Amino acid sequence: MTYQPINLREKFYKFSAHWSPKIIAQMNDYHIKVAKVQGEFVWHSHPEADEVFLVVQGRLEIHFRDGAVTLREGEMYVVPKGVEHKPVAEEECHILLVEPAGTVNTGDVLDEKTAPNNVWI
Amino acid sequence: MTYQPINLREKFYKFSAHWSPKIIAQMNDYHIKVAKVQGEFVWHSHPEADEVFLVVQGRLEIHFRDGAVTLREGEMYVVPKGVEHKPVAEEECHILLVEPAGTVNTGDVLDEKTAPNNVWI
Repeated sequence: MTYQPINLREKFYKFSAHWSPKIIAQMNDYHIKVAKVQGEFVWHSHPEADEVFLVVQGRLEIHFRDGAVTLREGEMYVVPKGVEHKPVAEEECHILLVEPAGTVNTGDVLDEKTAPNNVWI
Repeated sequence: MTYQPINLREKFYKFSAHWSPKIIAQMNDYHIKVAKVQGEFVWHSHPEADEVFLVVQGRLEIHFRDGAVTLREGEMYVVPKGVEHKPVAEEECHILLVEPAGTVNTGDVLDEKTAPNNVWI
């Protein structure tokens, strides 16, 4: 039997909306998600869980209240739980996220950018 | 304050041993690891946890008792818990792994390829 790999590039082809993470795999009670982002997101935190950002294409800045980290292709960062952060991408950026199933993209904040949190692609 | 990204390429420069995963980040009670692999690994399973494989460079085959999946750069697969598998790479392949902290690379099997499971890089 031949099993099918999950191809990141193919997954990114399938949607265009910004700030709307799509689930591509489940590992135990965690989801692996992909998202396209551009512009400024909202300040928020995830009180219960760390969040992994891995840049697949483009450049992402993650702002913190006391600084920032810039991620380029092939770079990642783990935002600790409870830490306020605001992702910003000047140009469209493709990212991979790892976070507990059920995590809402805007964390503790309800905003127009709050996206459905259980969409598979 | 400027925070430092975790650069995958830099992490891979830092070691050369095959089948010896190195931790590059922690997310809650999970570890993100990088590994260089070449040749055949041992048949094993992880009875308690799914395991994520993402190929960063090269090609990885994951054999199952009833088939296989081939992963190329930018492709991933989640091996379900309890499923016997044997990773194989004809040429050196660089992979990223996500698995619960404390996961042993050879799972339920003790082998000469069993590596220390708590090495950060």
